[in-house]
Amino acid sequence: MRRLYDAAVKAADPRRALAGHMPPPWRGRTVVLGAGKAAAAMAQAFESLWQGPLEGLVVTRYGHRVPCERIEVVEASHPVPDAAAERAAERILERARSLGPEDQLVFLASGGGSALLSLPAAGLSLADKQAVTRALLSCGARISEINTVRKHLSRVKGGRLAAAAAPACVLTLAISDVPGDDPAVIASGPAVPDPTSFADARAVLAKYRIEEPKAVLSHLEKAEEETPKPGDPLFLRVRFELVASPRASLEAAALSALSAGILPIVLSDRIEGEAREAARVLAAIALSLKGGGLRVGEEALRPPAVLLSGGETTVTLKGEGRGGRNSEFLLALAEALDGAEGISALACDTDGIDGSEENAGAILYPQSLARAAALGIEAKALLARNDSHRFFAALGDLVVTGPTLTNVNDFRAVLVEN
Amino acid sequence: MRRLYDAAVKAADPRRALAGHMPPPWRGRTVVLGAGKAAAAMAQAFESLWQGPLEGLVVTRYGHRVPCERIEVVEASHPVPDAAAERAAERILERARSLGPEDQLVFLASGGGSALLSLPAAGLSLADKQAVTRALLSCGARISEINTVRKHLSRVKGGRLAAAAAPACVLTLAISDVPGDDPAVIASGPAVPDPTSFADARAVLAKYRIEEPKAVLSHLEKAEEETPKPGDPLFLRVRFELVASPRASLEAAALSALSAGILPIVLSDRIEGEAREAARVLAAIALSLKGGGLRVGEEALRPPAVLLSGGETTVTLKGEGRGGRNSEFLLALAEALDGAEGISALACDTDGIDGSEENAGAILYPQSLARAAALGIEAKALLARNDSHRFFAALGDLVVTGPTLTNVNDFRAVLVEN
Repeated sequence: MRRLYDAAVKAADPRRALAGHMPPPWRGRTVVLGAGKAAAAMAQAFESLWQGPLEGLVVTRYGHRVPCERIEVVEASHPVPDAAAERAAERILERARSLGPEDQLVFLASGGGSALLSLPAAGLSLADKQAVTRALLSCGARISEINTVRKHLSRVKGGRLAAAAAPACVLTLAISDVPGDDPAVIASGPAVPDPTSFADARAVLAKYRIEEPKAVLSHLEKAEEETPKPGDPLFLRVRFELVASPRASLEAAALSALSAGILPIVLSDRIEGEAREAARVLAAIALSLKGGGLRVGEEALRPPAVLLSGGETTVTLKGEGRGGRNSEFLLALAEALDGAEGISALACDTDGIDGSEENAGAILYPQSLARAAALGIEAKALLARNDSHRFFAALGDLVVTGPTLTNVNDFRAVLVEN
Repeated sequence: MRRLYDAAVKAADPRRALAGHMPPPWRGRTVVLGAGKAAAAMAQAFESLWQGPLEGLVVTRYGHRVPCERIEVVEASHPVPDAAAERAAERILERARSLGPEDQLVFLASGGGSALLSLPAAGLSLADKQAVTRALLSCGARISEINTVRKHLSRVKGGRLAAAAAPACVLTLAISDVPGDDPAVIASGPAVPDPTSFADARAVLAKYRIEEPKAVLSHLEKAEEETPKPGDPLFLRVRFELVASPRASLEAAALSALSAGILPIVLSDRIEGEAREAARVLAAIALSLKGGGLRVGEEALRPPAVLLSGGETTVTLKGEGRGGRNSEFLLALAEALDGAEGISALACDTDGIDGSEENAGAILYPQSLARAAALGIEAKALLARNDSHRFFAALGDLVVTGPTLTNVNDFRAVLVEN
């Protein structure tokens, strides 16, 4: 299972991911701009792969810097933007405006880019954007909805960066961490067309009953300058390439499973919802697979098989324990499987950080519950107080990788053996 | 989808289910005993299929009576036992004791049998059993755990009925509504060996910190007479046959899908957990299937396909709305799918009753959210107050079948078209 996870992370590694998507040599200036948690790692990879002259500026999350020689790296706050994000966005927009028709802009997009590239529209303050971002993050809105609003409060998102760079050629290279891999959603699509409108943004706020800050609502009401839409001639020289995604990483893991003689079943690249509840569904599927096989068409799929899934679950905190969504998923899975023979699992964040812990995730074995019980550790009680880290730490079954400098969300493998 | 549901229910229809499992003609007496929500319907079916002389007594839930000619039907309370269940169990035990070596006992087991056949062990009162049943039902214990306790507080469960009937031949015919279809768990296995022990029962109460009633705990401490165990010579003349199950019903629906040219994917016969959270996982799988296909081995499964699943989800009430777990599942699915094209779904209880409503479940269409919005009905708000019935009632999309007189739990079909 660890090998499957490594295959998934490797498929999303910026250097490996960019290698197949580098633009051809260029006569004019090549300016690399970018935003996201993987921005610095992508910039470093781009530098090492690019032959010609190069300049640029990317903004990444505090602590996610890696050394670059020709592209400047700055850091800012995530998921709620700060003044550093604003300064970075201003400078990035300036760079885009400096481009001529012979030049090209390469935009490196990755998860977190929406917060890290944040430049309030005229009449809005950073505080307004922070307030509405917090409200959206805490109301259960989906990322596509959040970014619909963000794009209509910004001077850089939703294709406005591409507009600033026109008539230069623009290429977005993106690592996706959003369900569906929509170019207009990843990092709020600064350099691609935006199919959403001011009316859509107002509808999102109405749906979640967000009525503050007033400046945000009145900006959306005024609806003065729409984001550039698909079909706009502006986008004739604009391209988008997905270089890494949850799906591609799951596919890589599936190939690795196949070569080990294990049947891979990729259930979904976008499982969301409460981690412990997703675990119960996955446990049910695994137990059915173990019990009588999983019927597809006229066949019954049988073990050895591995259920692969991606996406980003959430944890609603009820206790004060330690642990991220991946270890919580596994502890709930342990409870639901109740020591079922032949079923083990790995759940890790592909960025190497499960929640705010030092581990990427953990591994669950059929014997884990019994081993924990022998140590006096009661899974049920730990789960009740969101203390999953303690469970796997005590067993020595944490997976620790350090930051991987990429992010295609969570990776889960539930292995069902005979 | 309605045809798939009908196929699932038909496969679990008592008459159809029993037809392939009737014992051969018998020289001695044939006594039919039974307990469960389908007991009367199974008794009626048995009567109509059996050629020779016949007598018997079954206990079913209040309101689940159907007319029988030769087998007496009594009613009792479910899920917490009442005095009627106790009287029925006494009489059923008496009938079993009356059997000689030439006779056969046919025990008709179905969901609910544990509560409906309830005879406290010596020293315990009905009130004790009611109290511990309530505690177990409300603490989140799984059905196998609840029945482990029940079997050790009873004079009839956990093989004791078979022991009372010895040396008669004993055949259990069961309709399963429990995950895994374990004969010892269905209706607490009155006529099959019990692999669980007093120590197991004590461990369940300890796990869920149930410390009352004291009489129950001290009975389990004394551990005076173990239930008959697998391998006991008592069971040489005892057989068990599963006549209907969630898995078999899902298989029947799968065949129906195949014949309609739709690829069936049976995910699991035992999905449990919070209905709205299970919906989010199913939505993710459906969206992935729609988006890029669901990879299995070297293939990608593509629409048109239908995701089938069974089991029994739960609803944690937060509001005061109307609706069962199936309509709640569908409303949450609607939210998660957000009107995705080409994805529709049916979720119904195979017993014809979703929770305490008059409908079996409902159907969701891609346009349902928009149609509801046009009627001024906001899905999100209804879901927040567990008011899913109103949503589907307003759309005219409830599925109403009336009681089906069988029960193999919930049936869900998520149809993904091109």
